Amino acid sequence: MLRFEVSACEPGGRARCGMLHTAHGPARTPAFMPVGTQAAVKGIQADQVRASGAEVVLANTYHLHLRPGAELIAEFGGLHRFMAWDGPILTDSGGYQVFSLAELNRVTDEGVTFRSHVDGREVRLTPASVIEIQNRLGADIIMAFDECPPGDADHARAAGAVERTLRWAEQCRRLHQRDDQALFGIVQGGTYEELRLMCAERLIELDFPGYAVGGLSVGETHAEMVRVLEAVVPALPADRPRYLMGVGTPRDILAAVRSGIDMFDCVLPTRNGRNACAFTATGTMKLRNEQFRRSEEPLEADCTCPTCLRYSRGYLRHLFIVREMLGPILLTIHNLWFFQRFMARLRDLIPTGDWATMLGEFPIAAAPDAGCDNPVSPKRTRR
Amino acid sequence: MLRFEVSACEPGGRARCGMLHTAHGPARTPAFMPVGTQAAVKGIQADQVRASGAEVVLANTYHLHLRPGAELIAEFGGLHRFMAWDGPILTDSGGYQVFSLAELNRVTDEGVTFRSHVDGREVRLTPASVIEIQNRLGADIIMAFDECPPGDADHARAAGAVERTLRWAEQCRRLHQRDDQALFGIVQGGTYEELRLMCAERLIELDFPGYAVGGLSVGETHAEMVRVLEAVVPALPADRPRYLMGVGTPRDILAAVRSGIDMFDCVLPTRNGRNACAFTATGTMKLRNEQFRRSEEPLEADCTCPTCLRYSRGYLRHLFIVREMLGPILLTIHNLWFFQRFMARLRDLIPTGDWATMLGEFPIAAAPDAGCDNPVSPKRTRR
Repeated sequence: MLRFEVSACEPGGRARCGMLHTAHGPARTPAFMPVGTQAAVKGIQADQVRASGAEVVLANTYHLHLRPGAELIAEFGGLHRFMAWDGPILTDSGGYQVFSLAELNRVTDEGVTFRSHVDGREVRLTPASVIEIQNRLGADIIMAFDECPPGDADHARAAGAVERTLRWAEQCRRLHQRDDQALFGIVQGGTYEELRLMCAERLIELDFPGYAVGGLSVGETHAEMVRVLEAVVPALPADRPRYLMGVGTPRDILAAVRSGIDMFDCVLPTRNGRNACAFTATGTMKLRNEQFRRSEEPLEADCTCPTCLRYSRGYLRHLFIVREMLGPILLTIHNLWFFQRFMARLRDLIPTGDWATMLGEFPIAAAPDAGCDNPVSPKRTRR
Repeated sequence: MLRFEVSACEPGGRARCGMLHTAHGPARTPAFMPVGTQAAVKGIQADQVRASGAEVVLANTYHLHLRPGAELIAEFGGLHRFMAWDGPILTDSGGYQVFSLAELNRVTDEGVTFRSHVDGREVRLTPASVIEIQNRLGADIIMAFDECPPGDADHARAAGAVERTLRWAEQCRRLHQRDDQALFGIVQGGTYEELRLMCAERLIELDFPGYAVGGLSVGETHAEMVRVLEAVVPALPADRPRYLMGVGTPRDILAAVRSGIDMFDCVLPTRNGRNACAFTATGTMKLRNEQFRRSEEPLEADCTCPTCLRYSRGYLRHLFIVREMLGPILLTIHNLWFFQRFMARLRDLIPTGDWATMLGEFPIAAAPDAGCDNPVSPKRTRR
């Protein structure tokens, strides 16, 4: 079973350092989980993910249910063996994807019927099937099935989603019996603080080993996100890990850590890497830009990732201009390393709470947006 | 300057083992050169290419002249530094690409004017410009500019191409002055043995440090290719390396080694890898095939490549079915390792000439074709 220990707290603040102990080993928190939607971090081998410093990765129940199916993965001995990642894995429940990718057919209190985004066939997910699928996949941390309304949902819609999410959470809690997988509840409620608090309170009554905050980074402003986190995170049990789903930019992550969040996942390092956008301490770089044509410098002078150790900005630009797949690969590698370096430095500084130093070393954490060529719409920052 | 030593010969045969000593270190022969057309082996980092056992890689003058331009690469200190490959590099002259990829405008005795396949702009290549470009790129082995007629060229057309190739070879020989780059002459002549022999004889008078056989693997049968090689290779100086351009399948390579060829390049391991086709000792495997859905086996039980050490056929199939770029990457890695393993075993067995053992261990080397889903048209087996 999951064990979580808090090892250090920010003096006079809410940020904390800790360790998740899972059936597949430990992971330091605050943790950033690279996204391996379809049982692969796009373009990156498992040992390269490990080398970046990542200790836990995320995979997606919705996608893996559609292809290749949880039964098949179970035949392979579960997701860890299938994708050759022997460390901790978290599977998202698929709720977000059902509501964002699929063509919705019918949402009832019993579950969701939808058309697969792959081939249009009708698929049904219920709290019971989501638990069964995740049991078969065998991740160390699994998620309850939630209703994830659009970012601009009004109060009534958000309240309805909370009620359904709570009903489904209760069913998931009852149906999940495996001791080697920790089931997290998901707090919904949009940007309505009293809905968020009510949802958190009722989830806590169900006594989950961890709690996630869902339905953020779906179109609201940074300030709105921070307001919701400042309201809801302190209401979550201090001895349980707290996971902010689908977030985010360095600025979002820093703010969320300061509110007391322990775990993150986001497609930004991988998707932006594929789109020629590199993260650096001082900001993002669009590698297709003419200004890098002659640059013999690495992406970042002090970065020790395999890309920066060997390749120049000029070479990377060339790869993107001529559409060589090595460009997306090398930028993804750098971005994965960057996010882990960012998290490691956050963990270093939490015991002192020296955020001025953090912002001095990572000015990007004060930047209002990722600043890339292909501005990632909030909806698309989730896997 | 290039130094070539023959270290062992097949008893009673023509195959030989040797070593190329270049300004960027040695390479054992027979050598298979992975193709890095645009200064990148597609999807693979330089240290992964090195780990596969490859000791020399190929890049392409035509492609690099169009993008990013030899001047820019020279500013980076040359191709080795640009692509982070510190071992030997060979650049093809671009003749083949001009005649196969570009929209030809005008071929005269002075050179070729064509429209770029990238943006349609008019470009002119001459023996002088091809040498100048390759001097700037800085590869250890560079190629004379040749006219590469279609595989079905008649005798008159083939003879004309030989004359032009010889005239250009003489010019290239005279214009190339750098001592750290070895310029190879290219034998043309289609499937006409007397044209091939005449071309070889006149090139030998120019005293090149190495000789290539071009214009094969362009549509002729395996038997025709072998007939040409058996005729022309013995006519080339025994103390110079011999390079068969754009070849090929394991069967082609074995036959060519037996005729006395020392060097090869081909896109088969990389292109087939991207197309879900894996090379194994017993034949090729089409990884999208349903039969691999449940397979927990690696591609090859005795392969020690990073793909086979970690991933199952079933996982690889999943990656191709869901279009994850990790599939092409992992299969390319395996295929690069496979080709190097094949060459290493050839080098082992040359001193004994035990081809029965070679065919016993690599039945694929007796297979009439690569046997893949996407049969590679002969024209397209070149970079």
